[in-house]
Amino acid sequence: MIDAFCEDPLEPPSPEPDPASAESRIIARVLASTLHATPSAHVGPGDDAAVLASGEVLTTDLLVEGVHFDARSDGEDVGFKAVAVSVSDLAAMGAAPHWMLLCLALPADDAFASALARGVGQACERWGVELVGGDTTGTPGPRFIGVTMGGRCPGAPLLRSTGRPGDRILVTGVPGLAARGYTDAHAPAPALLALRRPSPSPALGIALARVASAGMDLSDGLAADLPRLCAASRVGARIDPAALPDHPALHGGPVPARTLQLAGGDDYALLITVPPELESAALEIAAAHGEALTSIGHLTPGRAVQAIDGPWPAAPWSHHAGAP
Amino acid sequence: MIDAFCEDPLEPPSPEPDPASAESRIIARVLASTLHATPSAHVGPGDDAAVLASGEVLTTDLLVEGVHFDARSDGEDVGFKAVAVSVSDLAAMGAAPHWMLLCLALPADDAFASALARGVGQACERWGVELVGGDTTGTPGPRFIGVTMGGRCPGAPLLRSTGRPGDRILVTGVPGLAARGYTDAHAPAPALLALRRPSPSPALGIALARVASAGMDLSDGLAADLPRLCAASRVGARIDPAALPDHPALHGGPVPARTLQLAGGDDYALLITVPPELESAALEIAAAHGEALTSIGHLTPGRAVQAIDGPWPAAPWSHHAGAP
Repeated sequence: MIDAFCEDPLEPPSPEPDPASAESRIIARVLASTLHATPSAHVGPGDDAAVLASGEVLTTDLLVEGVHFDARSDGEDVGFKAVAVSVSDLAAMGAAPHWMLLCLALPADDAFASALARGVGQACERWGVELVGGDTTGTPGPRFIGVTMGGRCPGAPLLRSTGRPGDRILVTGVPGLAARGYTDAHAPAPALLALRRPSPSPALGIALARVASAGMDLSDGLAADLPRLCAASRVGARIDPAALPDHPALHGGPVPARTLQLAGGDDYALLITVPPELESAALEIAAAHGEALTSIGHLTPGRAVQAIDGPWPAAPWSHHAGAP
Repeated sequence: MIDAFCEDPLEPPSPEPDPASAESRIIARVLASTLHATPSAHVGPGDDAAVLASGEVLTTDLLVEGVHFDARSDGEDVGFKAVAVSVSDLAAMGAAPHWMLLCLALPADDAFASALARGVGQACERWGVELVGGDTTGTPGPRFIGVTMGGRCPGAPLLRSTGRPGDRILVTGVPGLAARGYTDAHAPAPALLALRRPSPSPALGIALARVASAGMDLSDGLAADLPRLCAASRVGARIDPAALPDHPALHGGPVPARTLQLAGGDDYALLITVPPELESAALEIAAAHGEALTSIGHLTPGRAVQAIDGPWPAAPWSHHAGAP
């Protein structure tokens, strides 16, 4: 994601139980105050990816052991997910991924490096991404994985900032499924799979970009991400939590299904807004791709982001939360 | 640099007193054996940068605290150098830098982050590079800085692999000056400046690319880097160490000047080869840019890399060695 350097001051503050997120915000603020704006980039910091004047769409993501994954994580899953997270950023822009660069800082540990490489290779093959280079080093500390990915939008890039009051709000997939896996190592297979092997679809993102007014990927959960889209578009939102897609695997764990659906992250699904007259076209596009797309509310004038049945939920999720 | 995934098996093994470098090689080998080749990139792993079919030239570099810089390092210098190192990679390809993405993993420490951002900003301004996005996170471990930079070659990219026997070998700047600063915190100002504020010149790289047959940047020192160029070009080399440029600041430190000149790294100067009939043109280009360019030997048939006055020196330098 490209959100390091412009925290929207209107974004509602969310509780941050993860101290890393608070630090990240401090760093971002310092950088934003020091570094220059980006006149030649069409879309700069603050969206899922940057779009250069040349049409190249760029995203960069880092995963740090102890923050985004931990000792329980399988190296192959971590490698796969490191790629998938960036694919998701590009899909959310309506872009197809083409190439990536990989930076690794790893202690001497062939088993993990080898598994990581397998996972990266699987994901590159899955999405047709070419690994064109990288840099590696040893480290005395936690493992560090940095992915930079580039691609192209066949049409206009899908931005966060172009939603309008009245537009319908829709989500792909089953928000909360990955969080079910994260909060319960014995969760059903679909939940663990959603957590460990995110499945963003650039083809769906590209097709939906033709009818959507705005969009982003659902990486930190609806509770955190919908207010970001609204802040960028300078609108409010009103959603019906009961409309969120249900799934048997969401139930039976330590966290209520509704909480997972609203506040769980790591799904790498799409959150889009669509003018009402194009909603049926969007639903047909998703059906043609064999993907779930669910209408959950609409954008409103003003700036309030609300659920119809209660207060807006807290957003406790930390981006890229680790896998058991 | 883009050298993570293809260690040339013919590259002579060099002693690696820095365990991080040995680990890095292990990781690189694991990745190389797992990941696919890169059919659509013109120049893939193994050169200073990758060149995409679209003409985009890409490089990525990471700096880890405790490996590439340490507690003695000034944050502003580290930020400046993180950018300069990637500018040097592009300059060595004959490319002009255009944009960069910045990944940071930092503990909560406003003073360092703030200084780092200033240094990054100074370097971006110096070389006209636009920071188009990035990602930040906290970390429980050492600081981590990842830079991905892109640019364009006005002409053909300058590769490591296209040197021919008989070509002259030339270096820009004063190799060893940065190592003098690294090995002696009380070194003269020019040495400390060379270490802390590397000064690669894309304009010179672009101009020299018109006459050079091959080139790379001198980041790990001549002792390590010339064998890499020779391995890529499948040639040998014969150099006269006495021909290396001298400088008053090279002398008087704990390490002999000759050792610094041959085996010291972190200079981010250019190492190029030029057909004999174009040597005078190359020297005129450098003079027009106000930069030193010195002829130190020639490429040979066969594969031996030799000094005329003794055995080829050990290459103890660790890439991006830190600054006092």
